[in-house]
Amino acid sequence: MSLFSFKYINPNPLKKARLGTIVTPNGTVKTPAFIFCATKAAIKGVNPKQMTDENTQFILANTYHLMLQPGPDIIEKAGGLHKFMGWNGPMLTDSGGFQIFSLGHGSVASEIKGKRMNDWPKTLLKITEEGAKFRSYIDGKIHFLTPESSIQIQRKLGPDFVVVLDECTAFHVDKKYTTNSMRMSHRWASRSLAEFNKSDDGKQKLYGIIQGGVYQDLRQESCDYVNSQPFFGHAIGGSLGAAKEQMYEVVAMTAEKLDSSKPIHLLGIGGIIDVFNGVENGIDTFDCVHPTRLARHGGALVKPENRENKNKEHLNLNNSRFRDDFSPIEENCKCYTCQNHTKGYIHHLLKAKELLAASLITIHNVHLMNHLMKKIREAIQNDSLEKEKRYWTL
Amino acid sequence: MSLFSFKYINPNPLKKARLGTIVTPNGTVKTPAFIFCATKAAIKGVNPKQMTDENTQFILANTYHLMLQPGPDIIEKAGGLHKFMGWNGPMLTDSGGFQIFSLGHGSVASEIKGKRMNDWPKTLLKITEEGAKFRSYIDGKIHFLTPESSIQIQRKLGPDFVVVLDECTAFHVDKKYTTNSMRMSHRWASRSLAEFNKSDDGKQKLYGIIQGGVYQDLRQESCDYVNSQPFFGHAIGGSLGAAKEQMYEVVAMTAEKLDSSKPIHLLGIGGIIDVFNGVENGIDTFDCVHPTRLARHGGALVKPENRENKNKEHLNLNNSRFRDDFSPIEENCKCYTCQNHTKGYIHHLLKAKELLAASLITIHNVHLMNHLMKKIREAIQNDSLEKEKRYWTL
Repeated sequence: MSLFSFKYINPNPLKKARLGTIVTPNGTVKTPAFIFCATKAAIKGVNPKQMTDENTQFILANTYHLMLQPGPDIIEKAGGLHKFMGWNGPMLTDSGGFQIFSLGHGSVASEIKGKRMNDWPKTLLKITEEGAKFRSYIDGKIHFLTPESSIQIQRKLGPDFVVVLDECTAFHVDKKYTTNSMRMSHRWASRSLAEFNKSDDGKQKLYGIIQGGVYQDLRQESCDYVNSQPFFGHAIGGSLGAAKEQMYEVVAMTAEKLDSSKPIHLLGIGGIIDVFNGVENGIDTFDCVHPTRLARHGGALVKPENRENKNKEHLNLNNSRFRDDFSPIEENCKCYTCQNHTKGYIHHLLKAKELLAASLITIHNVHLMNHLMKKIREAIQNDSLEKEKRYWTL
Repeated sequence: MSLFSFKYINPNPLKKARLGTIVTPNGTVKTPAFIFCATKAAIKGVNPKQMTDENTQFILANTYHLMLQPGPDIIEKAGGLHKFMGWNGPMLTDSGGFQIFSLGHGSVASEIKGKRMNDWPKTLLKITEEGAKFRSYIDGKIHFLTPESSIQIQRKLGPDFVVVLDECTAFHVDKKYTTNSMRMSHRWASRSLAEFNKSDDGKQKLYGIIQGGVYQDLRQESCDYVNSQPFFGHAIGGSLGAAKEQMYEVVAMTAEKLDSSKPIHLLGIGGIIDVFNGVENGIDTFDCVHPTRLARHGGALVKPENRENKNKEHLNLNNSRFRDDFSPIEENCKCYTCQNHTKGYIHHLLKAKELLAASLITIHNVHLMNHLMKKIREAIQNDSLEKEKRYWTL
């Protein structure tokens, strides 16, 4: 019997929003769910117990960072990522592609070291049919990542879910480039599957990725491809457009074309309103560095009644008006931070550059995202998702 | 009835080591005890719950840092340090003197921002009978700290215990300077007491400080002074000499001259062997940044059977030989870190500059120091302190 399964129900069969369970050898995820980014095998400033205490179900780590440091062999020797980092729940790694290509385009260099580095050298050296050649940001060594080696590395990393290597194109490339790139990504995905099947021991499952940029016909072609393959789940990747409206349109048209019997993940999206939009289109899981990165910069996500203005989902605790505000981030929040600490204290910690500031705000943001997902699941069950969305986003 | 008390017993009346209880409005401390440094109202990278989970009884914060940022009025408005930082146990603040003078001498600039800064500007501008003038390291503003203003600031900070302002002399000054400085510190202490008594509401108690450097006659004079005053407790300060042997001698000769009915604190000492030496001489409490600062640099304190060599009280987890060591820092440790994480993982976190590294090692070091103090208390009770000392220090 498989160690994995995915089941879902549509409480309102006229709507796409769905309630699911993803069963893994390391526990069960109730969907819709949020996946937090433990980029280098650590949630920055928060330990696994604290993540669990705030109701976290699911985390991911980045193959790109871990293949460079400490290297897949070390993590394999530790018994895989779960044991290496002390995380006992479901876990996913990406293929390494996103960071290679986005670094190559110079757009998310800030992700690498947690700060903007405008003079970051281009590290992507060459993309060929075979794979991608890039330079390590740590020691300058040249690496060659192929669909096969990405799978081999993710085998060693040992998460529950692994992802095929794809080329992640920038949003400004034209339709011709997008088409050719997508088709190469499909060939890479087939090679990933073949490599995955060669060493399949039943302890991991593979996600395919849908590319095709903002073009409906390409998204159709990409969905047709992944639907024809035996992936466990599907992740919507690639460019979703330059503006929110276009993103919602691309997500909607893509999700509706996907085999509904498989879990659907939306890569890199984590704004509250964007999560609602995804859920309405049948998305099951989301990941994004936003809640945790925002926290490290002093931003605390808050429910609508605690916002400064309705369009801003967070409070900036660096603001000097919090200096003598000795109420919690949110009065009605059950997280460790809100139960024990105040905005004024966290403001002081930020000003004093104390490590604890990032830790306390991250705890709150993780709790809030998990609370949001729970409220969304309850609303789907009760067929009140529109009302819940109005509450959070209006 | 007083909210405070100190009681002790000498299980072996022929020895000076003693078991005590310090009762405060915020809880009771079993002594001998270690006081951890929450310099800027935070243990770096560890929250109050984590400190309590690792059996911490007592913490301190530094008046110097807090008077500059966020300022005493903010902390008073929060309801005092306990409420400001969410710490529910006994707490002490120092007078601000140590940092002013050591910064002035340029010797512990590293303490200010947690790193060495050799080009740190001299911030101590002038010492007079009235007090000390210095420049803020944050905004360059000039401040004047007097015995009275130090007490007023510590009233606003609101810890259980406050300390008189003294001049902290460098170890290389001559006997004449030490004598004059000590006598001025006594006059400052009397002014501190007078100021303290003016506003005494019974919620705080005052510690006096013994100065006198390495000179037996001056230490005698300083002990005579503090013994004649109604301090709640006594703290041994000032230069303890350049080498360990001299330090042990100065601590021994000072402690035996002090009124034994009052708790005795040894300022700034926290090496394991030094703690045993203090306890043998009747010291009740210790404070030092060592266990927490060491942790931030990758040093994990370990019990003798887990050491690399018997004279080194810690493992340096930056060392590459821990890369694939997937055992905990100590197999026989009950701290969160050892129960959940390995040396290899922490080594990775240090290399990847992850915030979590400092947090996890600090948790371990705090646990170990609290464990050490518990074993010391048990050994005093069982009259086996020499055996316990041999175990930890040979």
